[in-house]
Amino acid sequence: MTTIEKIAALRQEMRANGLSAYVVPGNDPHASEYMASHWCEMQWLSGFNGEAGTVVVTPDRALLWTDSRYYLQAGIELKDSGIELMRESDVDCPSVVDWLAENTRGLVGVNPEMFSVNDYKEWSEKIELKSMDLIKPLWTDGRPAIPQDKLYPYSADFAGETVESKLARMRNKLVALHGNAMIISALDEIAWLLNIRGNDVEYNPVVISYVVLEPDKCTLFVDSSKIDSPAQNYLDFNNIDIKPYESVFDYISSLSGTVLYDGARVNEALYEAIPADCKKINTKSPILIDKAKKNAVELEGERIAMRQDAAALTRFFKWLEEEAFKSPQTEWTLMEKLHEFRLMGENFVEESFGTIAGYLGNGAIVHYAATKEHCAEVKPEGMLLLDSGGQYLDGTTDITRTIWLGGRIPQQAKLDYTYVLKGHIALQTARFPRGTRGNQLDALAKQYMWEAGITYGHGTGHGVGHFLGCHEGPQNVRTDNNPTALEVGHIISDEPGIYRTGKWGIRTENLITVIPAKQTKATTTEDEWLSFETLTLCFYDTSLIEMSLMTEEEIDWLNAYHVRVYKEVAPLLNADEAKYLARKCAAIEL
Amino acid sequence: MTTIEKIAALRQEMRANGLSAYVVPGNDPHASEYMASHWCEMQWLSGFNGEAGTVVVTPDRALLWTDSRYYLQAGIELKDSGIELMRESDVDCPSVVDWLAENTRGLVGVNPEMFSVNDYKEWSEKIELKSMDLIKPLWTDGRPAIPQDKLYPYSADFAGETVESKLARMRNKLVALHGNAMIISALDEIAWLLNIRGNDVEYNPVVISYVVLEPDKCTLFVDSSKIDSPAQNYLDFNNIDIKPYESVFDYISSLSGTVLYDGARVNEALYEAIPADCKKINTKSPILIDKAKKNAVELEGERIAMRQDAAALTRFFKWLEEEAFKSPQTEWTLMEKLHEFRLMGENFVEESFGTIAGYLGNGAIVHYAATKEHCAEVKPEGMLLLDSGGQYLDGTTDITRTIWLGGRIPQQAKLDYTYVLKGHIALQTARFPRGTRGNQLDALAKQYMWEAGITYGHGTGHGVGHFLGCHEGPQNVRTDNNPTALEVGHIISDEPGIYRTGKWGIRTENLITVIPAKQTKATTTEDEWLSFETLTLCFYDTSLIEMSLMTEEEIDWLNAYHVRVYKEVAPLLNADEAKYLARKCAAIEL
Repeated sequence: MTTIEKIAALRQEMRANGLSAYVVPGNDPHASEYMASHWCEMQWLSGFNGEAGTVVVTPDRALLWTDSRYYLQAGIELKDSGIELMRESDVDCPSVVDWLAENTRGLVGVNPEMFSVNDYKEWSEKIELKSMDLIKPLWTDGRPAIPQDKLYPYSADFAGETVESKLARMRNKLVALHGNAMIISALDEIAWLLNIRGNDVEYNPVVISYVVLEPDKCTLFVDSSKIDSPAQNYLDFNNIDIKPYESVFDYISSLSGTVLYDGARVNEALYEAIPADCKKINTKSPILIDKAKKNAVELEGERIAMRQDAAALTRFFKWLEEEAFKSPQTEWTLMEKLHEFRLMGENFVEESFGTIAGYLGNGAIVHYAATKEHCAEVKPEGMLLLDSGGQYLDGTTDITRTIWLGGRIPQQAKLDYTYVLKGHIALQTARFPRGTRGNQLDALAKQYMWEAGITYGHGTGHGVGHFLGCHEGPQNVRTDNNPTALEVGHIISDEPGIYRTGKWGIRTENLITVIPAKQTKATTTEDEWLSFETLTLCFYDTSLIEMSLMTEEEIDWLNAYHVRVYKEVAPLLNADEAKYLARKCAAIEL
Repeated sequence: MTTIEKIAALRQEMRANGLSAYVVPGNDPHASEYMASHWCEMQWLSGFNGEAGTVVVTPDRALLWTDSRYYLQAGIELKDSGIELMRESDVDCPSVVDWLAENTRGLVGVNPEMFSVNDYKEWSEKIELKSMDLIKPLWTDGRPAIPQDKLYPYSADFAGETVESKLARMRNKLVALHGNAMIISALDEIAWLLNIRGNDVEYNPVVISYVVLEPDKCTLFVDSSKIDSPAQNYLDFNNIDIKPYESVFDYISSLSGTVLYDGARVNEALYEAIPADCKKINTKSPILIDKAKKNAVELEGERIAMRQDAAALTRFFKWLEEEAFKSPQTEWTLMEKLHEFRLMGENFVEESFGTIAGYLGNGAIVHYAATKEHCAEVKPEGMLLLDSGGQYLDGTTDITRTIWLGGRIPQQAKLDYTYVLKGHIALQTARFPRGTRGNQLDALAKQYMWEAGITYGHGTGHGVGHFLGCHEGPQNVRTDNNPTALEVGHIISDEPGIYRTGKWGIRTENLITVIPAKQTKATTTEDEWLSFETLTLCFYDTSLIEMSLMTEEEIDWLNAYHVRVYKEVAPLLNADEAKYLARKCAAIEL
């Protein structure tokens, strides 16, 4: 079926059910960002392959909301689909629900498994929702099954804490809130809590499952086909009961007393299964909060993973400079080559997201995804943006470097690169009092480009998991308000960018972790001070720096960073590679 | 009665009424920041004279919540009162209502006139409130009456818009929301809407009154003693009905249809007067939003007021440097002298707030208020912080300068002064995309002192009214989130500070207004860009600058500012004064 045919079929179902609109959000039942393809209903219906979007279909219109990262991509992929693009990052763009309230009358159909409790409640205050799944009967041909990969235990040697300890900690919180049960549906929370990992979702080593935690038991709802004998032993040993995935609804409907759930992450269908006479407490997931604060073992693992990742990148950049262009290259062949180098790394499992190799103007398409079939040829000239990361048993990496492949560098390219670099340095060298939220620091990364009248639409920093989601909450650095204060052990990315449509994209990204700041003599208050440790270990392309914009402090920082990169990464390289790295890490001077 | 006796008497009333606690917030019925002394119940009960605080009395404890501006002052003034200080800016300090929920059982008494609808509702979700006024029967001796000063028309030549136009604009919004009436209780909103001013509240040229706006009429609830014949003619001419102040409750109880109110500003007693069968819509006051965006006439008035104010300050600083110490001086005598110089200014009405003259360690007491009886002697040595402002018919000013009176300058004082100055310059020279909120810019003013491990507890910038409240919303620059984006015409202060207990306080403050930014060639997006115009016109003490910390750009900005100050202010000065100003505005060099 074409997109136009799918939408026509959906409209027929809508008419049969008396709906004035049907909404297909880009969600799964676990509030995942990356989803098993089984749940990619939004992409299936619209033909738009971005990672975020919501489709609304009414009798005479079809619309897709997505954010500024995907404007260009959606513009291309929605062509001839009859679907209008709603640019949701724009100030004057109505939210999906406000648009529905304004433009429709009557029932709006949604699948309650695809809505968080909070979103469902918020929407219900403005429009009349009707719970029904109209996609299931339509998407019969070729719909991927729910993955059936194996679950495996994740050693406390990597996790830094036993399941027993984590369960005891969470049960204490459950009891403190007088709760009889806590529903956990986010896959990364389940993986963290039970020290398990899996292969169900691309780039995310999670297991499709639910957990209900009670003071005296812990039940994992997961298909039995995923549990082999070692996994069974591990779960038995830790007193974790196993029940079928789909039986979670029945189980929840048999609960009594007080039930805790995080309305931002638990889906409406689970919520509706809670018996009416239970007391329901909507509380921010304590697992989410604790998971974000990495322990010493997790952080040490991150440092190990960063060295492996840096070795792979160094080998890749050396190959790109010295070998690659002896034969034709495309964005796709570069992605494949980088993957090969990462595969050489100890404990490498898979990429942590789809590599973005954006050559020239493709670099300006934020979250551009080249495919083998659709990718640009890369020549030894102009700008290349490379955003990639790895899942290692030791930890998760995410790094962006933008490099100049050859030819004369336009002055504007140097200016852009340097504004980005200055902001990137300003954020990771910031010192700030305890209690500071990420959005308070956002302008530090933007101030230099703002001065030149330039900004970007994506976040400056996202939280990063430990051998889990490359994006995780609750912390981040964005313009939007987020009440979460940065805390010791949080990992965030630091990735400002400048994008010139048709010309180039420049983004520079390190992962950084919050640490207690060194004391200074000047301190006037009793505030505790925090700062960042840079985790990522990869050189910057110094040929793109406009030195006249750099301060002495910035140059000192960059030189010291390059000294550290060489010291930590060279031991993993052979002599030739180390020599290459030494050259890339050479000190720069005003 | 002593504080201890007042609290004992209050406890007797609490017992008689079966209350487990009674709360006296530092509020009046109009959600004012500065209140007529008639309503200073919190100060009367506690003996604490700060401008913000809440007293809670239980059978065995009495507590006062206040913010970090007042910690030092409250510590002194609450001594021997038996009242415990709750430091509400501290991360671990419970809110008043959370403390009550945790520490009391049963009814909590409050006067509903002293609570906004929103606060009352929020508290009701956590504790059981009982509406009753227990202070009225206790505070009989010497309670000041509600002020009876005259109301006067404020010319559209100053306001830049007629009453007719403003009423039409607000009625359009009322009708657009299908409202039959809008309750307006904030005194600055009433003054702005009706182009009236008065003398009822110190530092705030407002008239104690309420307004109910309907599609076909506008009723001002104000005591008739305040209306003389010209005022009567003015109100008649503009079809504004007059009714007694207290009759607002009866009037509201006779309304029908849909009633609009701003739950953040309208008090609970007014809300309870709305008939049960009315539809009630809680909406952000459209007057608040429009009032904040100054029109061209208001901004031109601000510029005129700034020149007058700068002339007064120049004369004051010249006197302080050349004449003052021929006789003994105190913080109080300096405040009086500054007032004398301001009185010479054209269209000067009164101060816009109580001048803060903080000598040496007193400067570290944020919002310190010297009195004639309690003030420090000032000698020609050490640091003086001077925060003051004027109400002119043309506009409102608010300025802080910190100067060195003589003696050797400690190196730390220069560093502190320079961190503050660099942050102060960074904020007012910022360029940012439309949609940016003040709290996104807060770190720009703090980044340099943060680097040294220093911060401050007060806001960086507050909104400022036009010949109205020196503090006004909805815009500000603070760490706290505020959803209001900065818009063209907003006026805010820019006032970072560093405070060293017992040594000195340093704060540097200008008023700045949001303007469209000049276009640059580098712009990559279609964002509209905004920047600030500096309104305040007064030199900085350059002797306190640690030049090695200053960038070339900062020095250029400062020199250009001093050129502008001289050019705009010198024409108001005599030759001697102009010569003094030229010396203070001399260019500095690295």
